[in-house]
Amino acid sequence: MTQTFRTAILGASGYTGAELVRLIATHPHLKISALTANSKAGQAMASVFPQCVGMDLPDLIRIEDLDPASIDIAFCALPHATTQEVVSALPRDLKIVDLSADFRLRDPAAYEAWYGRPHGALDLQDEAVYGLTEFYREQIAGARLVAGTGCNAATVMYGVLPLLAAGVVEPDEISVALMAGVSGAGRSAKEGLLHTEVSEGVHPYSITGHRHVAEFEQEFSKVAGRPVTCSFMPHLMPMNRGILATIHVRGEASAIHAALAERYSAEPFVHVLPLGEAPSTRHVRGSNLCRIGVVPDRVPGRVYVFSTLDNLMKGASGQAVQNANLMLGLEESAGLTLAPVFP
Amino acid sequence: MTQTFRTAILGASGYTGAELVRLIATHPHLKISALTANSKAGQAMASVFPQCVGMDLPDLIRIEDLDPASIDIAFCALPHATTQEVVSALPRDLKIVDLSADFRLRDPAAYEAWYGRPHGALDLQDEAVYGLTEFYREQIAGARLVAGTGCNAATVMYGVLPLLAAGVVEPDEISVALMAGVSGAGRSAKEGLLHTEVSEGVHPYSITGHRHVAEFEQEFSKVAGRPVTCSFMPHLMPMNRGILATIHVRGEASAIHAALAERYSAEPFVHVLPLGEAPSTRHVRGSNLCRIGVVPDRVPGRVYVFSTLDNLMKGASGQAVQNANLMLGLEESAGLTLAPVFP
Amino acid sequence: MTQTFRTAILGASGYTGAELVRLIATHPHLKISALTANSKAGQAMASVFPQCVGMDLPDLIRIEDLDPASIDIAFCALPHATTQEVVSALPRDLKIVDLSADFRLRDPAAYEAWYGRPHGALDLQDEAVYGLTEFYREQIAGARLVAGTGCNAATVMYGVLPLLAAGVVEPDEISVALMAGVSGAGRSAKEGLLHTEVSEGVHPYSITGHRHVAEFEQEFSKVAGRPVTCSFMPHLMPMNRGILATIHVRGEASAIHAALAERYSAEPFVHVLPLGEAPSTRHVRGSNLCRIGVVPDRVPGRVYVFSTLDNLMKGASGQAVQNANLMLGLEESAGLTLAPVFP
Amino acid sequence: MTQTFRTAILGASGYTGAELVRLIATHPHLKISALTANSKAGQAMASVFPQCVGMDLPDLIRIEDLDPASIDIAFCALPHATTQEVVSALPRDLKIVDLSADFRLRDPAAYEAWYGRPHGALDLQDEAVYGLTEFYREQIAGARLVAGTGCNAATVMYGVLPLLAAGVVEPDEISVALMAGVSGAGRSAKEGLLHTEVSEGVHPYSITGHRHVAEFEQEFSKVAGRPVTCSFMPHLMPMNRGILATIHVRGEASAIHAALAERYSAEPFVHVLPLGEAPSTRHVRGSNLCRIGVVPDRVPGRVYVFSTLDNLMKGASGQAVQNANLMLGLEESAGLTLAPVFP
Repeated sequence: MTQTFRTAILGASGYTGAELVRLIATHPHLKISALTANSKAGQAMASVFPQCVGMDLPDLIRIEDLDPASIDIAFCALPHATTQEVVSALPRDLKIVDLSADFRLRDPAAYEAWYGRPHGALDLQDEAVYGLTEFYREQIAGARLVAGTGCNAATVMYGVLPLLAAGVVEPDEISVALMAGVSGAGRSAKEGLLHTEVSEGVHPYSITGHRHVAEFEQEFSKVAGRPVTCSFMPHLMPMNRGILATIHVRGEASAIHAALAERYSAEPFVHVLPLGEAPSTRHVRGSNLCRIGVVPDRVPGRVYVFSTLDNLMKGASGQAVQNANLMLGLEESAGLTLAPVFP
Repeated sequence: MTQTFRTAILGASGYTGAELVRLIATHPHLKISALTANSKAGQAMASVFPQCVGMDLPDLIRIEDLDPASIDIAFCALPHATTQEVVSALPRDLKIVDLSADFRLRDPAAYEAWYGRPHGALDLQDEAVYGLTEFYREQIAGARLVAGTGCNAATVMYGVLPLLAAGVVEPDEISVALMAGVSGAGRSAKEGLLHTEVSEGVHPYSITGHRHVAEFEQEFSKVAGRPVTCSFMPHLMPMNRGILATIHVRGEASAIHAALAERYSAEPFVHVLPLGEAPSTRHVRGSNLCRIGVVPDRVPGRVYVFSTLDNLMKGASGQAVQNANLMLGLEESAGLTLAPVFP
Repeated sequence: MTQTFRTAILGASGYTGAELVRLIATHPHLKISALTANSKAGQAMASVFPQCVGMDLPDLIRIEDLDPASIDIAFCALPHATTQEVVSALPRDLKIVDLSADFRLRDPAAYEAWYGRPHGALDLQDEAVYGLTEFYREQIAGARLVAGTGCNAATVMYGVLPLLAAGVVEPDEISVALMAGVSGAGRSAKEGLLHTEVSEGVHPYSITGHRHVAEFEQEFSKVAGRPVTCSFMPHLMPMNRGILATIHVRGEASAIHAALAERYSAEPFVHVLPLGEAPSTRHVRGSNLCRIGVVPDRVPGRVYVFSTLDNLMKGASGQAVQNANLMLGLEESAGLTLAPVFP
Repeated sequence: MTQTFRTAILGASGYTGAELVRLIATHPHLKISALTANSKAGQAMASVFPQCVGMDLPDLIRIEDLDPASIDIAFCALPHATTQEVVSALPRDLKIVDLSADFRLRDPAAYEAWYGRPHGALDLQDEAVYGLTEFYREQIAGARLVAGTGCNAATVMYGVLPLLAAGVVEPDEISVALMAGVSGAGRSAKEGLLHTEVSEGVHPYSITGHRHVAEFEQEFSKVAGRPVTCSFMPHLMPMNRGILATIHVRGEASAIHAALAERYSAEPFVHVLPLGEAPSTRHVRGSNLCRIGVVPDRVPGRVYVFSTLDNLMKGASGQAVQNANLMLGLEESAGLTLAPVFP
């Protein structure tokens, strides 16, 4: 008999919340029991996200009105800082998959440096397991609190971590140019995210340092066994979904390709293309897939690694469901076998 | 025990073929046994459509190399005219869901007038059932050959047929301005479909008469019990997926809304919004849904009906799977409960 | 010797203000002497609109700090309501081209009905000349205060006014489906204008009645000599610039085409295409052109008229410069001969 | 008295040809006397490019029907290889600005290696001056035949050449990630350039080596006084116009900024932003401007240089007009002061 877990989405009025609703709609073992969004409390989800018309969903409530005893697992899609407070107030035995930045960084000083305020829930930070599924699978399966990764960070880490682990690239010469769809910036109304300001053009953003760097440098250093810094420049794309990381490294192409291919050979959601082929964001759109390509540079001794995923899926909500599946003892790919939507 | 039907897609190198692959990938009772595409025969599907990397799919073959005995049902996604020849050559007991225009028009003279050549398989035309599921459900369930509707035609018909049936609009005063995403024009390389020629602008197309008019006037006339002609002007949108029909009619808004709401009250894939609300194409994207809105015009006695769907889904491949489900005795919504992808 | 007029732009931090800057940059007789934007006062124009880097422009000031004696003409690109107050406070001999809705409607009751508040400067309303250049040319040349038209209204009026004047269409059966680029909604940060919410989709807006209707019904009724109401449904396009009005009328195509062709035969900025051809928004982008096409409907007795222009140009700032040229005794097309930007 | 030069555009049916028409339309000293396009000969330019409706332009003719004696200067916007033949057949005293790749490379072996065929007009190659205006101004002024640069190459060279000249970067550690609008690929109908294939996604292209590399490595090596190779990865953007080169170098940010600022301080079309600021493609759209920004990397000793321009303008047709102005003894900026078009 099929077991069903009662699920809450905290912060359901943003794009990652809506994407969770989309995924759970066809998930065989999760059902949505509660949706919170304090600024929209009392409204139907379909009035906040009209794509939900016709779905059988509870109305949005204030988080204070959530009964934790009525749910088995919560996805928390709230802004950082708010998240600390909310999660602190929830029962310590409630399983939580967090999508914010609040529990990603192990070093409180790093959190304070990048987020501009001291961390307010260090015990939770200690408890949290980093949510990069393919690298923390066993810990996630046993975790109560999982900290979802940054979407840009995930894209970069899938391309780089196996290379550092295998020692096939020079750790001090990794340079990433990343191209990110605009949904990663969320749904809040900002001039810089208007259609008129984003479409038909491209520009770099967060040029003095993107917060996701803190995450992947933490993981790079852990794997490399010594501090690793990384050049990283993100660009805002005139598109909604998808991230492409173009990772320029020093190493040898076939060794790099072999390290990636071997590392992910058994992974259902990470594909390594044949050597010499490059992926496109549009061919993973709407899916939980990450695609990686390796292409030799014309310049000897240098190689391009391309990593791409859908920021709302493998970079956020798809990853969150994958982790929830592990935490609940379900098949890891349950509800996540959706094929890419192209065109 | 779950039964699985062996499925062939004839003409798998176009967008409707690829969308069928996407749908069948998560369909509980269909599996892909053969893919044909004569111009790409011998290639892997993933080399023609890179979103298919990692899917377990047969290579593309020539249609001549298909063994009909090895399949239970065929989706035919070939161009019109070619379709007649191909279907004529297939066994007469093979279940076929056709997505072309070849078997939609009951009147051979209408076919010749709109398609510029005589129909070459009138016996098949006689046999074919029109694939507008909600209006031909029982016939489809018993059919061997189903003729999928035009995507624009389906969008218009969902908004209009119940109004003619209920007699709540003036049949001679229906004016449709339709806005269609560019994927409806297919994947062939034409100057007019280049990104540079389509993006950041809008223009009407098929201004002397769009072929889908033949279909919906056929159905309108049948329901109205007398000839109905309809003003219809399609526009090419700078977007990939989705159709919106803005249908201007003479009638009374609440009666019109009531007729639609009642007609579709039990339909899983056709939603009628509350009176006074209008749908958006982006909120049905990637789903098999059709959404309909009714809004009173400021001008007394006139009403706007908005109908929207995803041309590759409810307008083509989703509809085809829905019809296949009926033909195979499966649950009608099997494999089609995918929620809309937004943003 | 070339005369140069000192120009102020009031409300320079919006898109129509920026477009005025673009036009005046290459205008032979206008130079920018002052730019106001109260919320951005003290900033360089290039920090508000980076495309202005390198232009020789004054910094933004508060409108209170403008010295009217130092300018010869002002373009006022402020929101309605604010505009009344600002223009009331300016000297009564300062030439003003207003781009807001405040002085477009001759009937104070209509203003109150559509804008939800009584008009506060009826003497200015009396003085103002409506800025549809080709129909008010002589009055504009002698005017002190010109009220620029709504961008959607202009698009519709260019297609319809000559038809009512010539009596070649049925005034009670005009139905307009309009498709508008998102820059017409301005630069304020609203959720509904985000890239994620606008791109890759289409939906109708202002479905209970768009304010521009008040304008064109005013002008239609004046020309027709009796009240004319008009069905009008605008749609928000996933594009930045451009408006297409698809105008469905009852009449005879060749008479309609002849009326338009004759009316605009001497107009430099309004082109009528050969009968049977339709225009595209992208082919007038960035120019001051309006293009009109006439196509017979398949349904006898009905005709499609298509009118297109760039909402920031002929629909707003280009029109404003054209009117300023008349008011200053300059050649009407001065600074406005920019060719369309395509692709 | 104003002199007017009779101008021919050879290959006027492509986007660079059309952009030349746009520029010459408002150029004070050039007028179009002939337009050639063999595949479209006999047609009006407005039927090939509807944006030209209403312009006073000659019909398209075959190049064989061009009378060279009737023109003062020719812009040649033909494909490479064809260009060699065409230019060889023209009189040796006709001034020519070529936009193809045929005369850019000084080394015939390099041409053969990158373009897959021997060069067929080495005398013309010897005669040709490379068209990067700011670096070859005097030679261009005296040249008969100027070889326009590649659009991607120009973008990169503006950011890098002054750095190599000043010796402020490590020549062997230049890594360029470039993002290019799709109009750079021209107007030919290819599957990969369809709206459905380009919009809402991003991918690298020419991954085994882009031909423009040959150009900028030639110029880099010349300036550096020794061979320079450069890592270069272009990406196809879902936008029509604009190129952004994100150039990662080893050096010191303030020295790099100073070298660029000084080099371009007197240049009308190349702007260097204040240190720490980055440009956007959309703010140079439609203009002849190149904007450059310098931003320190977080990683010590590394710096980002961003260079952006409109590929059809400063990257092709705007550059060509700038060079023609020099060749004809006109003011260099004549006809090129158009402000950027945003949004």
